[in-house]
Amino acid sequence: MNVMADTPLRLESYVAGVWTRGAKEGVPLLDASTGAPVALIDSTGIDFAAALDYGREKAGPALRRMSFHERSMMLKALAQALMERKEEFYALSTATGATRTDSWIDIEGGIGTLFSYASKARREWPNTRVLVDGDVEALSRDNTFSAQHILTPLEGAAVHINAFNFPCWGMLEKLAPTLLAGMPAIVKPASQTAYLTELMVRRMVETGLLPDGAVQLICGSVGDLLDHVDSQDVVTFTGSAATGRRLKTHPAIVENSVRFTMEADSLNAAVLGLDATPGTEEFDLFVKEVAREMTAKAGQKCTAIRRVIAPRAHCDALVAALGERLGKVALGAPADENVRMGPLASLGQREEVRARIRDLTADAEVVVGDPKSARVVSGDAEAGAFLNPVLLYCGRPGAAQAVHDVEAFGPVSTVMPYDTTEEAVELVRRGRGSLVTSVFTNDACIAQDLVIGIAPFHGRVLIGNRVSAKSSTGHGSPLPGLVHGGPGRAGGGEELGGMRGVKHYMQRTAIQGAPGLLSAVTGRWVEGAPARSDGEHPFRKSLAELRIGDQLLTASRTVTLEDVEHFASFTGDTFYAHMDEEAARANPFFDGRVAHGYLIVSFAAGLFVDPAPGPVLANYGVDKLRFLTPVYPGDTLQVRLTCKEINPRENAEYGEVRWDCRVTNQTGASVAEYDVLTMVAKTRG
Amino acid sequence: MNVMADTPLRLESYVAGVWTRGAKEGVPLLDASTGAPVALIDSTGIDFAAALDYGREKAGPALRRMSFHERSMMLKALAQALMERKEEFYALSTATGATRTDSWIDIEGGIGTLFSYASKARREWPNTRVLVDGDVEALSRDNTFSAQHILTPLEGAAVHINAFNFPCWGMLEKLAPTLLAGMPAIVKPASQTAYLTELMVRRMVETGLLPDGAVQLICGSVGDLLDHVDSQDVVTFTGSAATGRRLKTHPAIVENSVRFTMEADSLNAAVLGLDATPGTEEFDLFVKEVAREMTAKAGQKCTAIRRVIAPRAHCDALVAALGERLGKVALGAPADENVRMGPLASLGQREEVRARIRDLTADAEVVVGDPKSARVVSGDAEAGAFLNPVLLYCGRPGAAQAVHDVEAFGPVSTVMPYDTTEEAVELVRRGRGSLVTSVFTNDACIAQDLVIGIAPFHGRVLIGNRVSAKSSTGHGSPLPGLVHGGPGRAGGGEELGGMRGVKHYMQRTAIQGAPGLLSAVTGRWVEGAPARSDGEHPFRKSLAELRIGDQLLTASRTVTLEDVEHFASFTGDTFYAHMDEEAARANPFFDGRVAHGYLIVSFAAGLFVDPAPGPVLANYGVDKLRFLTPVYPGDTLQVRLTCKEINPRENAEYGEVRWDCRVTNQTGASVAEYDVLTMVAKTRG
Repeated sequence: MNVMADTPLRLESYVAGVWTRGAKEGVPLLDASTGAPVALIDSTGIDFAAALDYGREKAGPALRRMSFHERSMMLKALAQALMERKEEFYALSTATGATRTDSWIDIEGGIGTLFSYASKARREWPNTRVLVDGDVEALSRDNTFSAQHILTPLEGAAVHINAFNFPCWGMLEKLAPTLLAGMPAIVKPASQTAYLTELMVRRMVETGLLPDGAVQLICGSVGDLLDHVDSQDVVTFTGSAATGRRLKTHPAIVENSVRFTMEADSLNAAVLGLDATPGTEEFDLFVKEVAREMTAKAGQKCTAIRRVIAPRAHCDALVAALGERLGKVALGAPADENVRMGPLASLGQREEVRARIRDLTADAEVVVGDPKSARVVSGDAEAGAFLNPVLLYCGRPGAAQAVHDVEAFGPVSTVMPYDTTEEAVELVRRGRGSLVTSVFTNDACIAQDLVIGIAPFHGRVLIGNRVSAKSSTGHGSPLPGLVHGGPGRAGGGEELGGMRGVKHYMQRTAIQGAPGLLSAVTGRWVEGAPARSDGEHPFRKSLAELRIGDQLLTASRTVTLEDVEHFASFTGDTFYAHMDEEAARANPFFDGRVAHGYLIVSFAAGLFVDPAPGPVLANYGVDKLRFLTPVYPGDTLQVRLTCKEINPRENAEYGEVRWDCRVTNQTGASVAEYDVLTMVAKTRG
Repeated sequence: MNVMADTPLRLESYVAGVWTRGAKEGVPLLDASTGAPVALIDSTGIDFAAALDYGREKAGPALRRMSFHERSMMLKALAQALMERKEEFYALSTATGATRTDSWIDIEGGIGTLFSYASKARREWPNTRVLVDGDVEALSRDNTFSAQHILTPLEGAAVHINAFNFPCWGMLEKLAPTLLAGMPAIVKPASQTAYLTELMVRRMVETGLLPDGAVQLICGSVGDLLDHVDSQDVVTFTGSAATGRRLKTHPAIVENSVRFTMEADSLNAAVLGLDATPGTEEFDLFVKEVAREMTAKAGQKCTAIRRVIAPRAHCDALVAALGERLGKVALGAPADENVRMGPLASLGQREEVRARIRDLTADAEVVVGDPKSARVVSGDAEAGAFLNPVLLYCGRPGAAQAVHDVEAFGPVSTVMPYDTTEEAVELVRRGRGSLVTSVFTNDACIAQDLVIGIAPFHGRVLIGNRVSAKSSTGHGSPLPGLVHGGPGRAGGGEELGGMRGVKHYMQRTAIQGAPGLLSAVTGRWVEGAPARSDGEHPFRKSLAELRIGDQLLTASRTVTLEDVEHFASFTGDTFYAHMDEEAARANPFFDGRVAHGYLIVSFAAGLFVDPAPGPVLANYGVDKLRFLTPVYPGDTLQVRLTCKEINPRENAEYGEVRWDCRVTNQTGASVAEYDVLTMVAKTRG
């Protein structure tokens, strides 16, 4: 692909395993800085129903045959391959108006999201195909009927309708959770910058790392695609609220209860705390952050700060400081190294932003920047979509409407004063739901009041202060591990949030039944399910030999008073409940001196461990240990150890095994229950 | 309230703290068995916007001031008060056509859901107002910037639009999670049986246990209520898919991204496994379950079995067995103790069901029961809405459409044959999303294939076999701990599921910032947040004195080879990695003999425990213990113990304290990390 070609490239869609041009020549997409045509886009004549079917029938089963860790390794390899080709993406990204810094967010931020999900999946999820969700619910006293929630991949395709501002990140942040879940995706980028998405998908397909049909691409209109979605498909949308509402009420989406997630631009705010007076570090950090959010991607970010809410007494100082800082921002051609801010994505976009600024002036006055003309250090101020940063001031924000409602999707923000923290909260909430708001304060009480006051209206809240000044990732950056989305005006959706985001592409199902059959379905041993004791100690079995339900019932051991006293003196844990009969009796939980909890688990290990070298390599942890019945001197302990979950690693010669461990006393009462976590070799080797 | 009154009762709505009649006399609601008027219903003239405002402004703040455990105690008290008055509800429930058994599901099942949520909340959630969700995300290496998700109650009102079949349970299963979350509710029962809901709300209000406005009631149409909902409100709907779709696309709901949950009737199935031949226990259990589901509530349950999918070879035997069983079902007046099945809710409902049976006969033939006439043992077959159970048979279900699409909301099911398990899965999926399907099999492989095959299409799957025969709660019963809802045809919603269901009324927000400020917001100590060591051992502090961040840095202790050997011989844990230098070296994780993990935590306790009697009463458990670095003889351990979370109990003189425990070696490397759980007295007493 040559950006400089004389005849602009005709973008292709990738559908049903074939790169296809639309039937018409297509609409030209223009370079944001020069107005020169970059590509032509059209999807006329493409069989959209076939794209859905191909994803569902070809890629879906292939993805579902892979385990979570296999999908994770696939994502990691894909991320590596894309990272190796990043300069090609940077080169083309300039045409979108993005500076190198802007492109970094889009390209490396996007690829980083793949890496992050690949690593989270292996750290946080088992290497299985079915995900167990939450604890087992015992539904009968005799353990003949229990329940367990599971998550399985939806068996349709995910249609991702993305915005123009992040042609790479916008695709990748949705692809990562979709593919990890085991669902294929159909990506539909916004036309304006689709050439960059097309290039990246082309490179993805060339790697051959993905099952056929796992990612398809539509360059141009989605035509009648949505008419064909059904209840196992997912549709996500990022973009304007108006378009989002139209999609959300599409008859096929409503009729089939298709999962629909929407992430719409919102009137995000930044609040300067009452303590953050001029001269404090927080004041300076606030100025920097607001200016950065106004100018990064020329303010074309759904998370950008639109409303700057500051103590009335400091508004003048704030406007002056912002004015000074914004005045220094070099506007120009994005390839120019001296340039801090590039053009908007298109001339049309600039007209749109100018119109919205006019709307805002119903409530506010322009105090920094001239919306009508652009001072550039390079590039063509006429042919390119350049716009200076514009700061407005609204003196009576409580009575105003437009400043809380109108989003100018460019380098535009409005400063508004407040008097009390309560009032600041009220102003933030006037946005009727936002993706993110940041509060700058070094006062714990103010932080608490502001954050709790606005939390129900936000998907993310950032607190800025001097401590996090250097390490903060900033107001505008969604992170793979944190939810991205917001209620109300922001669309009501939720994306990312670590492994939470993967579950949006899976169905949660409560499974009820006899524990043995539950175990067969989930691949996890459940209390009450059959167990096997074949005479061989389960620690002698490799991952290849071990089975869920392999069980050891140990010999028993009586705990003596001498044991307790010895343990106390050896470890130094001379807590009175172990040492002093009278004081122990006075304790509401004990009838006399009791054994240490750590003594119980230590003796239990002594009972269940098989000492000789073998497949079990190490005990790396313990989960959910609960002491349920006090152990008194004279009590006799016995341990039941059952293989609960087996997790071979994809890239090591061992894997994790989780053992259900139950210590009982001579009456059969459970005195301690916990999961023992071990590393076990794949073979006896 | 007197059901036998000559002039029927005019139902009232409870809005803004006042019981109010509609402006008109209202529409008569008729007794299902006798056709006699029970009540008149009308909501004309009621100010619905005022109801929303009253909930939001009056009850919302009052509920949010309560902690989760306080709300739980309130629910429990409410459940107790309603249980004491249950006979009054039973008496009135007869008018709906419900037998005593049917009413039990509705009345005591509903009250039981309140009890269950009250108990789960105290067991599973902390006694706070803000809920921490998931782990802390460390976003910087130096712990100056971290993140934590929190959940806070939405600040609007929840509007619950309920179905006619469960006037009590339908209200209570939604009220429990709503009130626990801290949101007020507006209940709108279906008119047909609203008199029972009205009676129960009346008794609820009389108890005085709920904050003013926490529960409001609308008897009759909701008028323009939905025009006034905004982004902090929630709307739930249970009922027909057609009405649900209309509500879901209501302009105010779409415009404001109002959370909307829908639970629609679905074409639930029951599958008889290939192994469950006539003569097996599973075959008999299947017959019993299908007959029970057809006749309980006269089949008017959204979870009832509509499609009976059975091996082709056993269909004749199955139809015969079902025919025999259904033939014995005594149909009649619900107050009659001999009656097993009452009438449908109304004559209109019976007409509706008969029309749907006619639709089904496009694909299937009636093989049991006459849809046109009713044989009753008591009651008036003409004036009452009686209908015999009707079983249909569809010989070619793969080619059929109506049997997978048409729901006859009464005692009606269709038997359909299959040949392979794969085909059975395919038939189940033709329902395009259901609330629940049950599979009857005693074969683990068949269970796995069936359940995994249909899970993505269901919110719940029940496996029936001989083991769970006595303890199973049955196909048709949603349980408080399990999700209720399903994808596609079933509406795409999710309710209940234990504490998951409460989160539907809360907003998840990612909070980022310096750990100290994060802790201030969440009330939970976060790594990197300031800690306090005031010289006093934190175990000497009562709940009243203890503060998040109180920290103890212990003395240090060197682990010797003698310690390791002594611990091994004392506990019996002589695992080779502790005992044999050469074998330990061969282990991929160790460079030589290592100390036992349980030795590390035992020595750690010896270092941090304060022995004398004091506020700390017991160590009741340990969470998330991970051994991070091997401890070799000669290594010196030190412990840092930090108060992380404080949870006073509402009804005891003590509460839980969670301590962050980190054991480091002489290089500062973390060798073990875990949470220590203790019971601590509220005062030094």
